[in-house]
This record gives sequence, C-alpha cells and structure tokens, in this order.
Amino acid sequence: MSAVGAELTERAAALDAADPLAGWRDEFEIPDPAKAYLDGNSLGMPPKRTFELVNAVMRDDWARGLIASWDHWLDLPQRVGDELAPVIGAGPGEVVVHDSTSVNLYQAIRAALRLRPDRRVIAIANTDFPTDRYIVDSIAHADGLTVRGGFDELDDVAVVVRSMIDYRSAEITDIAAETARARDAGAIVVWDLSHAAGLHPIGLRDAGVDLAVGCTYKFLNGGPGAPAFTYVASGLIDDVDEPFHGWFAQHGQFEMGPAFEARADIGRMLIGTPGILGLVAAQAGISVTAEAGIEAIRSKSVELGRFGLFACDELALAVSTPRDDTCRGGHLCVHHPDARRIVETMASDHNVVADFREPDVIRLGCSPLTTRFADVARAVEAIADLAR
Amino acid sequence: MSAVGAELTERAAALDAADPLAGWRDEFEIPDPAKAYLDGNSLGMPPKRTFELVNAVMRDDWARGLIASWDHWLDLPQRVGDELAPVIGAGPGEVVVHDSTSVNLYQAIRAALRLRPDRRVIAIANTDFPTDRYIVDSIAHADGLTVRGGFDELDDVAVVVRSMIDYRSAEITDIAAETARARDAGAIVVWDLSHAAGLHPIGLRDAGVDLAVGCTYKFLNGGPGAPAFTYVASGLIDDVDEPFHGWFAQHGQFEMGPAFEARADIGRMLIGTPGILGLVAAQAGISVTAEAGIEAIRSKSVELGRFGLFACDELALAVSTPRDDTCRGGHLCVHHPDARRIVETMASDHNVVADFREPDVIRLGCSPLTTRFADVARAVEAIADLAR
Repeated sequence: MSAVGAELTERAAALDAADPLAGWRDEFEIPDPAKAYLDGNSLGMPPKRTFELVNAVMRDDWARGLIASWDHWLDLPQRVGDELAPVIGAGPGEVVVHDSTSVNLYQAIRAALRLRPDRRVIAIANTDFPTDRYIVDSIAHADGLTVRGGFDELDDVAVVVRSMIDYRSAEITDIAAETARARDAGAIVVWDLSHAAGLHPIGLRDAGVDLAVGCTYKFLNGGPGAPAFTYVASGLIDDVDEPFHGWFAQHGQFEMGPAFEARADIGRMLIGTPGILGLVAAQAGISVTAEAGIEAIRSKSVELGRFGLFACDELALAVSTPRDDTCRGGHLCVHHPDARRIVETMASDHNVVADFREPDVIRLGCSPLTTRFADVARAVEAIADLAR
Repeated sequence: MSAVGAELTERAAALDAADPLAGWRDEFEIPDPAKAYLDGNSLGMPPKRTFELVNAVMRDDWARGLIASWDHWLDLPQRVGDELAPVIGAGPGEVVVHDSTSVNLYQAIRAALRLRPDRRVIAIANTDFPTDRYIVDSIAHADGLTVRGGFDELDDVAVVVRSMIDYRSAEITDIAAETARARDAGAIVVWDLSHAAGLHPIGLRDAGVDLAVGCTYKFLNGGPGAPAFTYVASGLIDDVDEPFHGWFAQHGQFEMGPAFEARADIGRMLIGTPGILGLVAAQAGISVTAEAGIEAIRSKSVELGRFGLFACDELALAVSTPRDDTCRGGHLCVHHPDARRIVETMASDHNVVADFREPDVIRLGCSPLTTRFADVARAVEAIADLAR
C-alpha cells in the first residue's frame, strides 16, 4: 500500500470508530463482512428483521390466517406509507407504497396532466433516468404532446418530471425552489425521489411539493424490486384523478358497484391487489431507516461524501460529484475511460462492489446504515490501483 | 347430522379415498387441517416449497449475492412465464409474469386499442369483475371511446374485454368460439383468465387467443397479491406497442440510450423493476400446479363441482352454477337472502371458510390441489343448517 493509501486507511478507521450510526450495520444480514459493498443505491442490503417479518407473514398470515388476513392487508399500502412519510418529510395520509416506480410515475404524470388540461408540453432533462424519459416520451406520443428537454422555459409546460438527486452525478436539485418556480409558471412538478428517499430528509411538505414517486429498494433496503411509493400533497388528493381506476382505488371496494368512485384518501392511488410479500419486506426496510433517523443518516452521508472526495483528490481521480455538501447526494461519480473493466476487476480481485454506468462512470454508492468509511477508502484505492 | 348429511359425508369420504390428487395436499403448509377452506379462488394456500424458495432468495441471492443477483433476476419474469405457459396452453416466449392483473389489463387493453386505431368501442359485460369494468371505463373516458355492455354486436368494436370464467356464476365462456367470432367482426379480445389459470387447461394457442392476462394468487397458489401474467400470441408480439415503455421493456436496457426501443420478445410487456420476492413465490406456486398436471386438476375440479351440485340438490339449496361440466369453472355459487350472515357463521362456528359476494351469493371455491370432497360436504351441510 502506498503512503497515501495507508493514510486513507487510517483516517477511515478513525471515522468509523467515531460513527454514531456504525452499530446499525448489525441490524443487517451480511454474510461476507469483508465485502466493500458500494452498490446499495442499486440494491440495499437486507435487514435481519426482513427475514423475520416475511416469514411471519407467510406462516401466520398466509398459511394460518388465509383469506381472513386481507382484513389487515387491505390498508397495508397506506400504513407502510405512513411509516415512510416522516422519512421523506410528508404527513400522514400523503404517502402510499405500491406497484413500481415506472408504473407510479406513469400514473402521477397522467394525473398531473389532467390537472393542466390546457397545456401541451412535458419537460424532462435529457440526462434523466431512462425509465423516466421513456415513459414521458410514451405518454407524449400517445397524446400528441411535446417533450421539452430542459427547464428554462416553463410558461407553456403542463408537467415537469424531474429527479431530485441525479442518478449519475448525485447532484441535488432544490425541490422547494424548483417547485415554486414551476408553480409560478403554471406547471406542476412530479418529482422522482428514487436516489433521495432514505438518504436525505427531502422535506416534501415544507418544499410545497404536489406529487412525487420513488423506490424503496435502494437506500430504504426494501428488497429487490420492492414496491415503490407515491406522494400526493394532502390538499391535492381530492382533485387527483389517476388513470387506472383499479379496484383497490374504489370507494366501497367490495360493494363492487356499477361505476367507479375514487376513494377520498391517498388510497385512490392504488391500482390492483398489492403484493404483500414485497410490501412487508419494504415495511421492514423502511422501519430501520425510520428508527435510525433520517437526519443522522444524512449527516453520515455528507461525511462519507466528503471523505470519498478527499480520497479521490489524494489519488488524483476525476470526480464529477458536486463539492458543495448541500448539492451532493449519496454517491460518488468517478470517471475513467476504462470504467467498465475497473468495476469488473474491483469485484473479482478486490471484493469491492461498485457499479458501472455508461459511458465512463464508476458509481460508488454510499448507504449510510451499511457503508463504512473503510469501504470507501478501499474502493477509491482499488480504482486508483486499477486505473494506472 | 341428518340422514342426508350422513350420506354426503360417506360419499365424500369415498371420493377422497379414490382421489389421485389427494397426496398433493401434503405439499402445502396447512396449520389447521380441520379447516374446510373454500376460498382458494380468492387466495390459494401456501406450498411448503414457497417458504424454502423465498428464504433461499433472501439468504443466498439478496444477502449474499447482492446486486450481482440481478444477472439471473433480469429475465426471471420471462422464465416464470415459461413455467406457466404449459399450464395455460401457451408456448414458450408467450407469457411473462409481472405487475398486477389490473395494471396488465390496462396495458393489454391499450395495446389492443393501438392495433384497432380506426374503431371507437370497447365491449365488456356489465357483470364482469369490477376492476375490469372500471379500467375499461377509465380508458374509454380518457380517450373518448364508447363502452358497450355486451357482445352481441361486434362490427364496430375495437376491443372486447372478457373473463373466461365468471367470478360469480363460474360459467365458462368458449374462448375459441368467441375469439373467432370477434376476429371475424374485426375486433380483438383481451381475455381475463383470473378464475381459470391453474384450474382449467385453457389452451390459449389452440383457441387462437391474441392477448390475455390473469392472476397467480388464486388457483396457482402464488401468494397474497402475487404478480399477474400477460400472454401475447407469438405472431403478435412484434406488433404490440404497450403504453408504458418502462425500462425493463427496453432493448439494451443498460445502455440507457436516448430513445425507447421495445425488446423483440415477450419482455416488451415488462414495465418497471419486477418485485423478486413476490415473483419467486409465484414461481413456487406455479411449479406445484405444473407438476401435478393441469389435466388431472381439471378432472378433479369437475368432480368437485358435480359432488357440490349433488349435495346442494340433496339439501335443496339454490345454485346458479352451470350444470354442464364443460361450462362450469371451479366454484359453486349458492344463493340465499342471508348469505352474508351464513358465510360469517360458517367461519366462526363451523370452521368452514367460504366467501360472500353481493348481493346474495355464497361462493364455494374448490381448489383441486387442496380442497377435499369432505370440505365441500361440510360446507354445503353448514349452509343448509344455517339457512333454516
């Protein structure tokens, strides 16, 4: 190890020793503690309680309770939403956990368009996450709307679709300022919180956000393909008409009447029968984050980012992640022409898991409840070693 | 017990003793074997292997494999679809397991409408399952289409939405004849197979079906809110343009290119990230049915229905389920003005679980891998007892 490497290792050890969240790692099932796992922003690790909760649901509710368990499952998406609400700065009755980010985004965009029927433009960044762009394009094509690739001009925009934290650069957008600017221009914003939920307090209510969606399988440790969530500001719920009108959104669901009438609460964003196994796993993951505290998580996230940037600088690696703490999310975006090879070799030879993003990005995702400063040090050293 | 009751019990015992599928009940986790569970058409029982498979996925794939497990999860919806295919008479590459019946129905209807852009009518029965009707109404309202409440006149119909087995009466519609009649009239049918999949061989290919959806949480024992499935006839896949364009439907998903290009296979019906825990539970349930054999399951289903009708006749109960074996699905529809009370008392006093459907229906769902003839006898006797 180089002198710089030794210094980074030592500094990481001191930061880990002083980390008030360090004990939360024990709440997770980690078969290979030696692995530096820096892809928690693609798939968070499993909390130990998830195993217990999923097995309890299979054994006690499904096998023993059978159909009667639907009595307490029916509103589980809303109850898990209420558990998630304080983690993202929402109020009770404003969040529901259901379906997938893609489906929820489609739903929220179509609901937002119905609130702005006189406008014909959807705005989204050309650099946003693929599923967001593709879904916007699909809706625009179906309805003969125009897609604008940016947010400078909003005066004719119906709906803005925008990620709070960029999936490549980790740059944070000021959701309060941008929601207000859009509102002043007559547009409504649908925020994608996938890289923010469970990492950043977000503060949806304080920011005046109308509609938002996000996933629970990243920083919320909800499991592979865990259900996503939808936020609707309480003042807007009565006005939202979502496109599906599935039976779980129906007022008096089991009357099975002739015509659809939307529920008077956040449950109107539900669609079909919710997947209970995935939902309880999401609930378990959300509960860990809620108990650890989102402010403490954000504080550690900032420190992990600072340390990672320091390490990259020491080892002369190119990083495009913002330097300003307030503008930086939970991962580091390191650029190298051999990024793909480096990521593969980090995994095979160094037991360090990062991920590659086209065309030249090594993404180091720092998930504060499970990522150690030592993991970041090892990752940056491995990149520097392999980049030579 | 009355003389009739004693005769029914004896006859049921003989039928159970001769049942070639009786041993399959041992494959299920049944904490209360004394319970007569006749609501398997709302939520099938859990196979024992589901516990093993879900725990293996949590332990080996999620905790140990972490993000690398997505290498084999990415096409899991298609692989589970291929396991389901022979159970519903589909070919390989024609079925994918994903999302919910409501979302998949919305998707299939919108895809079908794009295949008939010159027509403005959707046909659905006024008596069909609520989510189907509500979703049709929602799409029609959004696009300015007309909904026709029946199938007599199809010459101007774009899309027919229809259940193969009625959720109340259990009546089977001849999908081959009705698909052909619709095609001759220029309409395309989206079949809802929720009350047929896992119970009846269906024979989608032989029937010339174009599009179908259905759930896996009833007769397929996939678990509460298990993911649904979509069938697209192989010859139609290249022409289907579904409305979401989520990133799992994208050709070259991780290139994350500027424009959506649909995959060239059934994977184009995928939307967002699939929920893996729910999907492996569905896979476990489907595998049990596939191994037991759908023809044997259908044979027992017919016998269960015959016996239930016989019992109802003996005890003078009103049944609207078809008498013709070829027209009858997997449940019995018993009518009584006090149906709600009877269902509640059957559960509380007789340990017999049926379900109530507005306004006067007691639904006895017979799930051939777990329902015993004795369960049917007890249920019918309990109804007769409580109906006095």
